[in-house]
Amino acid sequence: MTTTTLPGASLIADLRPEARNAPESGIVEVVNHGRLKQGLIPLWVGEGDLPTPDFIARAANKSLADGETFYTWQRGIPELREALARYHTALYGQPFSSDRFFVTGSGMQSVQIAVRLIAGPGDELVIPTPAWPNFAAAIGIAGAKAVCVPMDLEHGRFKLDLDKLAAAITPRTRALVINSPANPTGWTATKAEMGALLALARKHGIWIIADEIYARFVYDGSPRAASFHDVMEPEDRVLFVQTFSKNWAMTGWRVGWIEAPPALGQVIENLIQYSTSGSPVFVQRAAIAALEEGEPFVAQQIARAAEGRKIISEGLLATNRVSLAAPDGAFYQFFSVDGRSDSRALAIELVDKANVGLAPGTAFGPGGETGLRLCFARKASDLVEVVARLQKALAT
Amino acid sequence: MTTTTLPGASLIADLRPEARNAPESGIVEVVNHGRLKQGLIPLWVGEGDLPTPDFIARAANKSLADGETFYTWQRGIPELREALARYHTALYGQPFSSDRFFVTGSGMQSVQIAVRLIAGPGDELVIPTPAWPNFAAAIGIAGAKAVCVPMDLEHGRFKLDLDKLAAAITPRTRALVINSPANPTGWTATKAEMGALLALARKHGIWIIADEIYARFVYDGSPRAASFHDVMEPEDRVLFVQTFSKNWAMTGWRVGWIEAPPALGQVIENLIQYSTSGSPVFVQRAAIAALEEGEPFVAQQIARAAEGRKIISEGLLATNRVSLAAPDGAFYQFFSVDGRSDSRALAIELVDKANVGLAPGTAFGPGGETGLRLCFARKASDLVEVVARLQKALAT
Repeated sequence: MTTTTLPGASLIADLRPEARNAPESGIVEVVNHGRLKQGLIPLWVGEGDLPTPDFIARAANKSLADGETFYTWQRGIPELREALARYHTALYGQPFSSDRFFVTGSGMQSVQIAVRLIAGPGDELVIPTPAWPNFAAAIGIAGAKAVCVPMDLEHGRFKLDLDKLAAAITPRTRALVINSPANPTGWTATKAEMGALLALARKHGIWIIADEIYARFVYDGSPRAASFHDVMEPEDRVLFVQTFSKNWAMTGWRVGWIEAPPALGQVIENLIQYSTSGSPVFVQRAAIAALEEGEPFVAQQIARAAEGRKIISEGLLATNRVSLAAPDGAFYQFFSVDGRSDSRALAIELVDKANVGLAPGTAFGPGGETGLRLCFARKASDLVEVVARLQKALAT
Repeated sequence: MTTTTLPGASLIADLRPEARNAPESGIVEVVNHGRLKQGLIPLWVGEGDLPTPDFIARAANKSLADGETFYTWQRGIPELREALARYHTALYGQPFSSDRFFVTGSGMQSVQIAVRLIAGPGDELVIPTPAWPNFAAAIGIAGAKAVCVPMDLEHGRFKLDLDKLAAAITPRTRALVINSPANPTGWTATKAEMGALLALARKHGIWIIADEIYARFVYDGSPRAASFHDVMEPEDRVLFVQTFSKNWAMTGWRVGWIEAPPALGQVIENLIQYSTSGSPVFVQRAAIAALEEGEPFVAQQIARAAEGRKIISEGLLATNRVSLAAPDGAFYQFFSVDGRSDSRALAIELVDKANVGLAPGTAFGPGGETGLRLCFARKASDLVEVVARLQKALAT
């Protein structure tokens, strides 16, 4: 009997385990399976179908024409940091200074830097799940451990049990990772829950990594979801990880920000310096245009998502084959199909059979295994077609 | 007696030491000191004075107009990876396949990912110094240790002592970090030295992180510097960290690449996914234009650098106050001023007194403390003026 070694296997064995063991994205796996399929309606990733509006792209064009193609401030250009302060002041109804804001090369980079700031080998971060898988992966690559606390699922609706969350905190815990409105579940914390989460973190002297990137996408008529900003003091140990991707249809631009106590400024600058060394000025000019001229577009996006949510939740329920509740926030419908517990196999099957791209719940950690995530930030006619295709596929 | 605590000090104390201890860039410190000074000629950072050529910016504009504003391939769009393969095939005179290339959000991100692939707590990486400080910083943030091996300095010219390098290798060593042509020293390895370095790495079963980003900037009439590509096999443990910044005047675009054995592809993709989640398509289109239409511009850049090198080395020598040798490669003059050993203080003084921005040697690690780095990738008239200003300042 001989042992065969794959070419390259010895190279891979010679990598750091944190890198080698980083999981392949369970979403990307399905995307790669169906990326080139003709006529497929892709609802698997967290982006809508609208390209970035022209007024945003024009700001980038102008900056390029002005020759803004050189290195720049590691924390972001002052004009963008000031625009972020004004945006927050308006959205949260309280004053913000620009020295709380640090421009990054994506919400993902914000997460990476936030994790690096506070966690490494021996540390634990507590995450309610199902959750966006990139949190746990970034934590693992940093050598720390993601401790998952499955949320309770009742009639398709997820709930956070604060006692379970508290029970997961150990002396090794460095932070709670709180995503509200949540991807993929749509769970949206109330102000009271935000207060309770903050109190829990304060009591244990731990940080909160707050992902409120879907704050504008709520469906109860409010202008935004409850925020840690509604309950915290400026110097609380809260690190906000943010992105321009969702509100302004800028997924492809790779630009986001961190909001943090200004005392951390130099450390954050250093972590930016030694990871990507700043963001392009022309991208930052586009981000300023988004903040300053983007409200009508954001309103349009929210209205489309509200319509999409209705089409999808009602349409799927009408199949009588699914379990779901329409989400309180974000722009995903998380649902399970009766009698189908392997969501990865189901997502692949629906690519092949229904020509619809969905993200498998297996990608989102404990508690999500049987679900599918559908992004409904898309034009109504596509979503009506998706409902028809799923109805047919699930009926057989 | 009372102890006062600075506001925010407790927050900083509550960060991970790897983050908290990441050094402020010694270059950025001087830049921030002089950034707003009127009339200052900035030669402190590694970029020239030419904005990105129009044909490159136009490719980005066209991509934006085409609506290429969505998420894309984590490894880079296939067209760019293929263009990189063609570029390498032409430059190195041997075939390259596109699956060796991975697009990143800067040369710096390439370094970060290369370090993460192979090093973490307990590991050591050996670096000849003086060296670009971001290597050691990225290694430190990863929890690993940068082991510096000062190069020998003879009459202003740096030499690498392979025996000293070999003596620095321990069972903890994971890689040699080799930058040739080197920033800041201009040291450029011969093909024989490249072969010896590779043999050393092979003998110890360790990796090489190869920074050959200045390969085109050599001054002996060759089309490029010697490369590990001249001596290696495709599956050797060599990770190339690369950037579009220098050849194509794209410092502000934040786009680079890693070249590595294809077997590492999925792991590299994962590290990209969990750090920045890919690069903008419109930036990648610009990068393709750079590779495919950029040769006349690169030739112009090299010719300007050759002229700048001559002006600076001859002009500084004429002061009779400096010690230097004109560099074999890259576009920096590294020099020391007689009787002045504190380069940080001297760099600050030259900002104030000569209105010239230089990088202090203290930023580049052991062996560089007394030097100053001057970037001569700039128009001749500015460099002539710099020589005059320095002549005056150093004479007093």
